Amino acid sequence: MPSQLVVTDFTLDTGVQELLVKAEEEGITTAFARAKEQEPHCKFGLTGVCCRRCLQGPCRITFNGNKGARRGVCGATADQIVARNLLSLIVEGTTPHVEHAREVLHTLLETAEGKAPYEIKGQEKLLSLAKKLGLTVDGLELNQIAHEVALKALQDFRQQSGVSHWLRLRAQGKTVETWEKLNLLPANAHLEIANAINKAAMGCESDPVSLLLEIMKMGLVEGYDGLHLSTDLQDVLFGTPRLVKTQYRMGVIKEDYVNIAVHGHIPMVSEKVLEWSRRLNDEAKALGAEGINVVGICCSANELLMRQGVSVATNYASQELAIITGALEVMVADAQCIMPGLAQVAACYHTELVSTLPNIKLEGASHVDWTPEEADKMGEDIVRRALARYPERDRVKVRIPSGTVEAYAGFSVEQIVELLSALNKEDPLLPLLDAIAQGDILGVVAIVGCTNPKVKQDWANTEVAKELMRNNVLVVASGCSAHSLGKNGLLSPEGLQYCGEKLANVLRAVGQANGLPALPPALHMGSCVDNSRIDDLLVALADRLGVAVRDLPVAGSSPENHSPKALSIGTFFIAQGVDVHIGVNAPITGSPLVEQALTANKGEFPVTTDELFGGKLIYEADPIRAARTLIDRIIQKRRALGLVCPEA
Amino acid sequence: MPSQLVVTDFTLDTGVQELLVKAEEEGITTAFARAKEQEPHCKFGLTGVCCRRCLQGPCRITFNGNKGARRGVCGATADQIVARNLLSLIVEGTTPHVEHAREVLHTLLETAEGKAPYEIKGQEKLLSLAKKLGLTVDGLELNQIAHEVALKALQDFRQQSGVSHWLRLRAQGKTVETWEKLNLLPANAHLEIANAINKAAMGCESDPVSLLLEIMKMGLVEGYDGLHLSTDLQDVLFGTPRLVKTQYRMGVIKEDYVNIAVHGHIPMVSEKVLEWSRRLNDEAKALGAEGINVVGICCSANELLMRQGVSVATNYASQELAIITGALEVMVADAQCIMPGLAQVAACYHTELVSTLPNIKLEGASHVDWTPEEADKMGEDIVRRALARYPERDRVKVRIPSGTVEAYAGFSVEQIVELLSALNKEDPLLPLLDAIAQGDILGVVAIVGCTNPKVKQDWANTEVAKELMRNNVLVVASGCSAHSLGKNGLLSPEGLQYCGEKLANVLRAVGQANGLPALPPALHMGSCVDNSRIDDLLVALADRLGVAVRDLPVAGSSPENHSPKALSIGTFFIAQGVDVHIGVNAPITGSPLVEQALTANKGEFPVTTDELFGGKLIYEADPIRAARTLIDRIIQKRRALGLVCPEA
Repeated sequence: MPSQLVVTDFTLDTGVQELLVKAEEEGITTAFARAKEQEPHCKFGLTGVCCRRCLQGPCRITFNGNKGARRGVCGATADQIVARNLLSLIVEGTTPHVEHAREVLHTLLETAEGKAPYEIKGQEKLLSLAKKLGLTVDGLELNQIAHEVALKALQDFRQQSGVSHWLRLRAQGKTVETWEKLNLLPANAHLEIANAINKAAMGCESDPVSLLLEIMKMGLVEGYDGLHLSTDLQDVLFGTPRLVKTQYRMGVIKEDYVNIAVHGHIPMVSEKVLEWSRRLNDEAKALGAEGINVVGICCSANELLMRQGVSVATNYASQELAIITGALEVMVADAQCIMPGLAQVAACYHTELVSTLPNIKLEGASHVDWTPEEADKMGEDIVRRALARYPERDRVKVRIPSGTVEAYAGFSVEQIVELLSALNKEDPLLPLLDAIAQGDILGVVAIVGCTNPKVKQDWANTEVAKELMRNNVLVVASGCSAHSLGKNGLLSPEGLQYCGEKLANVLRAVGQANGLPALPPALHMGSCVDNSRIDDLLVALADRLGVAVRDLPVAGSSPENHSPKALSIGTFFIAQGVDVHIGVNAPITGSPLVEQALTANKGEFPVTTDELFGGKLIYEADPIRAARTLIDRIIQKRRALGLVCPEA
Repeated sequence: MPSQLVVTDFTLDTGVQELLVKAEEEGITTAFARAKEQEPHCKFGLTGVCCRRCLQGPCRITFNGNKGARRGVCGATADQIVARNLLSLIVEGTTPHVEHAREVLHTLLETAEGKAPYEIKGQEKLLSLAKKLGLTVDGLELNQIAHEVALKALQDFRQQSGVSHWLRLRAQGKTVETWEKLNLLPANAHLEIANAINKAAMGCESDPVSLLLEIMKMGLVEGYDGLHLSTDLQDVLFGTPRLVKTQYRMGVIKEDYVNIAVHGHIPMVSEKVLEWSRRLNDEAKALGAEGINVVGICCSANELLMRQGVSVATNYASQELAIITGALEVMVADAQCIMPGLAQVAACYHTELVSTLPNIKLEGASHVDWTPEEADKMGEDIVRRALARYPERDRVKVRIPSGTVEAYAGFSVEQIVELLSALNKEDPLLPLLDAIAQGDILGVVAIVGCTNPKVKQDWANTEVAKELMRNNVLVVASGCSAHSLGKNGLLSPEGLQYCGEKLANVLRAVGQANGLPALPPALHMGSCVDNSRIDDLLVALADRLGVAVRDLPVAGSSPENHSPKALSIGTFFIAQGVDVHIGVNAPITGSPLVEQALTANKGEFPVTTDELFGGKLIYEADPIRAARTLIDRIIQKRRALGLVCPEA
């Protein structure tokens, strides 16, 4: 059980600390306490050598090489078991993003057909996609163009051969050649998912290297028919994000408002809830409230933040604590990262937990079905539930930690390019590339992913970021990691205090050319699917430089990863030759082969991703050491490009 | 380590016992010994309450209700964890069969296009499928019709909505209504697989009842776009099986022949190996051998047995022992149930282990790529490898257990109907239905599935079968379970000694009307995908009777199940209202809800498959008790139909 003494070990967020104490007082258990309860962890599970793939076992293989079985009943070795398990885990990371993209695709299709109450707000994005896809759109109306684009995307779920259209659309030609040689180009997202499960099945593929290559292929499915497809079509529907200012921390929940938290990932749900909260705002006033206040959690927060400036209550690990404020009327959930524990917490308050997706039902929650056609009905229903709950709020149980932190977000690639245009209208990327070339910016690192109740919340995310900033590394951010930075002032110009002088000067120069005191030291680029934006930025930089993405002095870091989605996203970047750090290890250490293939340097092991793709996995729990390792690798890449390098 | 004393505990098969002693003498480890090494098993894994779905854990939930964590870090309860894990396991069972069907489909497509060296041997089946699919085939050539049928099947992998064509083709209308009400009708096999993984992902679906319904939906994907589609298109390519006579046991490996074992599931591979063994037979003679001898293991055995009368060396658990005879030149593997341990055993002999499918590589094996176009090249290459290995055989290490057992197989529904026609040409099912109605046949039970090194090989399969036969239950069989019966004389008229007198009389009557002394007491209906044939038989009987499949006095039993495929096939039958017994429990006992929903009788628990579908899961390790439970349920169903019932 947490006590006032240890809540500071659980999280850096003082608001969350305060609420953990409240939870303890009220006898409510949260993920932080449950994480402690699972210690010590099963070593077979941690190292990946537990196999439950059939009913001959379960099997457990020796993980320290000394005692115990060296093979499962079927004869599988540790290498084989770990590789199969990792493939399954990566499939479990990839699939939710692919299904997310497919939901967006169907919404776009029905919107284009006039069946769903959404608009095409991203006209420029739509036209640019149509052009890049080679569609003839002359004389077509916007809805017709959207229909054509959506049908093209649908082919990535229908075609039985060929190459994913979204890969062709978004991948760098140089990198595609590498993948083609290795026979990794995916045809159809669903087909590839089924194929991967088939390989991992008992008695099917046993060659660990083939299994590892399949993992890399899943990374491409994740990247193109998961991340990129989601972002592109969401931008078509809801518009491409532009610079916004917002507030972070639990204090964004407002005592005198009807509060609705949107939680999950699917903007079609959260956008409609927001829209109806505005339409029904006066009804809240009739109840004596100041209005309706929508706050965000996890990536639903990111979607609404990026496009609508909605404020963010908290990130993954502390999602239950938002309810413990006692001031949430409704928490709306769609898909992914929704703790099953929420229902138990909501039951202690007047808060109504509402699930929305037809395919994602939550035990203990109300369900209001979202479909593209019925989106307005859902939005209104949910907001009316919040209004109905408001009078039931128990004022005695309300405790909202005070204080909020200012943050900027909305850094789509389009927005970044526009900001840079203030320095060089003809060649906007040039000032950024010059700064990199001269060493004013040492490199670019994306801080991405999750928080994890096993790790002190926000601490590793912010420590890695600050150490990088101190060394003049430009940080871009997404997902729950971006929230960690936001809560701690790193998405605001105030964060410049943590930057090396060279980086600070660049951020000031770009900011001031755009009427801001400075850019924040971390540029919030969006939700987890918006890691596609980070990818677009890398491809744009590499193309402008005339090199491959693998040559760039860039890296990714997920210091508090918990979701297999973080691993599949990481796989996508490694496949492009980008090093990826994780702070919580994947279950691979039971297999020397798998671990070495993913983490060893080129030449240090017979098969490595570093050799095949130019990027590798870096596991390091210590954030400062992690940042320094990334900096070392960035300097190696700078050296290879002949760029100025700092003295050793 | 096995010793002469305990090998009798490992298997009923005296040939396998003899080879286990040889393995011990030679210091070779097999699955039977490795199964012992895994004892005691991890209780969390056995009961389904271990969760490794993300990196917050691994989590282990209390399984005895006394001590330990009651929720995972995310808050998931035992019910939620067990339901998610079971869904994943069922997906891992379903997907290999779906991918199997898709391989057949593409082979048929390329054959129809003249690109692959296969023929359309099943003209009648093709025409009947085309007709049932509503295709207009007047004036079309056979290849053109095959092309149309294949394209229709391909829609089950391409369409984004609607209902699986193969479900519409093969399911009973009455049952489809039940599924439709529960929103379980699958549209597209790959889409449904992705959707199921999405549901089971961390932070997605948490309602255990919704998860259980998704499991039932996967059962339908398994049944129609896995089993039925595979069998139907295989019959088109290779012909519908007809009565054949064959031999069983290790003794079918012949010392003076070049021996090739085909192992796995995909007949496109094994048929070509057989074809080329015949074409190159004289080359074996030139080497001093009597010829080339192809023997089967697992379902590759079943495919060649059913259509070509090829003899069967052994079944799943003892696959490694076939190599230990020292007399196999080549073991050809394609997909599924291929123990990774085979490579290690093959390395101790001159035996070459060869993998064949582009997507299924085996560590330590040679690889000869099978594609539809290159099938002949593969067949020839593999047979030539066997010829080249023959001179390397170490005669000192050869020990082939003597003795074989005669067996009949080839009982497709078409063959059964033809046999029955000898009694009633106009209404061939009538004699069977009369025998059931009068109680001469108490019911029909399918003995299906695997062998499992955790269970004394062949023992539970044969004990269940014999107890049923004694009680006048007609047994049909498939998969490795059919091999258990074959090895023990139950696929031969000799097996009549185990039958109750009433059943024996029926078997004699049908047999003698067809020039045989009797039908065997167990009718071998084929491979695991050929459980579709068993389903066709049930649908035909139910339709003829004017009742639903759920009303029939029938059941399924998998006494030695190890593969998740056995569980997904079982789910398919439960969804139709057929009780399914398993002798090795699924990992469900950690969740009272999941266990009860699957195993309780209608009315004994709020949600049961027995109530929703009319069938339930029966776990019983003791084969005699299992058979009696099935008989009790059969008598209940007889009573409900108003059929004669035996005295209590």
